[in-house]
Amino acid sequence: MTVSFEALRDADQQTVRRAIRSEAYQAHTAGLATGYLQANLVIVEDVHALDFMRYCQRNPKPCPVVGVSDTGNPMMTTLGQDIDIRSDVPSYNIYRHGQLTDSCSDITHLWQDNMVAFALGCSFTFEHAILRAGFPLWHVENNRTVPMFKTTIDTVEAGPFSGPMVVSMRAIAADRLDEIKTISAQFPLAHGAPVHWGDPAVIGIHDITAPDWGDPTPVRDGEVAVFWACGVTPQAAIMRAGLPLCITHKPGQMLITDISDTAETPIKAAE
Amino acid sequence: MTVSFEALRDADQQTVRRAIRSEAYQAHTAGLATGYLQANLVIVEDVHALDFMRYCQRNPKPCPVVGVSDTGNPMMTTLGQDIDIRSDVPSYNIYRHGQLTDSCSDITHLWQDNMVAFALGCSFTFEHAILRAGFPLWHVENNRTVPMFKTTIDTVEAGPFSGPMVVSMRAIAADRLDEIKTISAQFPLAHGAPVHWGDPAVIGIHDITAPDWGDPTPVRDGEVAVFWACGVTPQAAIMRAGLPLCITHKPGQMLITDISDTAETPIKAAE
Repeated sequence: MTVSFEALRDADQQTVRRAIRSEAYQAHTAGLATGYLQANLVIVEDVHALDFMRYCQRNPKPCPVVGVSDTGNPMMTTLGQDIDIRSDVPSYNIYRHGQLTDSCSDITHLWQDNMVAFALGCSFTFEHAILRAGFPLWHVENNRTVPMFKTTIDTVEAGPFSGPMVVSMRAIAADRLDEIKTISAQFPLAHGAPVHWGDPAVIGIHDITAPDWGDPTPVRDGEVAVFWACGVTPQAAIMRAGLPLCITHKPGQMLITDISDTAETPIKAAE
Repeated sequence: MTVSFEALRDADQQTVRRAIRSEAYQAHTAGLATGYLQANLVIVEDVHALDFMRYCQRNPKPCPVVGVSDTGNPMMTTLGQDIDIRSDVPSYNIYRHGQLTDSCSDITHLWQDNMVAFALGCSFTFEHAILRAGFPLWHVENNRTVPMFKTTIDTVEAGPFSGPMVVSMRAIAADRLDEIKTISAQFPLAHGAPVHWGDPAVIGIHDITAPDWGDPTPVRDGEVAVFWACGVTPQAAIMRAGLPLCITHKPGQMLITDISDTAETPIKAAE
């Protein structure tokens, strides 16, 4: 039995997660469980976990760690009650030796005793805050995916993890630029303040109408292109590292946690 | 040749660090290199590094990670130029099997290829901000060490690391309580907002005049005792874990970095 986005729109976060776990819902999570932190997912084997965590620490804007499992334990205990990372994300991407080889809606058959799951903050959190502050967001109004671009900004490497920073772009009224910088800086676990604004060429983007991921989005008169570090950055680093096995969420289909998206820290105390 | 605190008071951060490296200065770093992030230090062997980093992630208020070395590499590349963690802290404490066995001013002879160094944010950063906002701090005015207490608040465990949260106490005018919460919340890498205020007994402190570390500090009429998570917490966890070998800074004698203490992230790009 499947359940529609509309049917889940007003459901609480645990109801949405149950629908995902049972495979009744397998699509994007934007606009669901409003008010709760959503997260990107990266699962690596233990031999790479410390290097990956160092990579995240050194690149806190694209890769803000909000939760880490114990080795081999699929329960994300600090992010909520009964969150099983093997089933509670709508869809997963499987990478082998740096290549996307498969997607699936449950990874219980792939889970190993040496795996470590990382949840990384995502832009939905600050987009909620931006919308609350009365900023229009073209991709939200038009039901598209935010445009994302590879840049010439290098991330800081750690072990096998390195590569370009990926950014997302939102067109913002020029006279509200300072305001949006201040608002987004208040969300260090959701990419923080923008990394660039204005001329895209400065960060190596030569055609703003041709994003590497997501949908083209207009920058109209009176608007400035504003770029934030993006959670696709670690996926690019993982592909580059060529690990034998790595699992991520499918972009847009995030982990929904029990943490308020305005919480000071993303930690739920053990019960 | 030794150099006095007074002689270093107006020196820049690299000059202070050179004096420390050469062992010309071996005392507390409070009030030195103002405007630069200072950090607590914990060095563990690689087999414990992932668990320790998970412990820090799960307890971000007492243990905010601001830098991590590569395994076996003593240079803290993301925290500044030419920072050698073996020599650039005034004094080190050496723990063996959970016991403090020795202190020294240089650990080059103890450094091993399997060691990982963690720098953790410290309260000096938000104390600077508090002082700038015109709050008097009794322990600063009276040249004492802030009082610290073990509490009944449990940290979230990770591997062998667990134990009580340690807090520091500052007496704040009751009518400025909201203001100080707001200011300190702006420094998530320096313990963030307070964890408790008011009755000390609620968090297991039964005699406010008898701190476990630091100096007794009065709470006068019109003041409230305000408690922040403290960087001594991980030292308590390390002792409890009983690791064969662990090295920390000596409390009060911190690592001075090249990072501005108002920087959005504690990361200096590679040069």
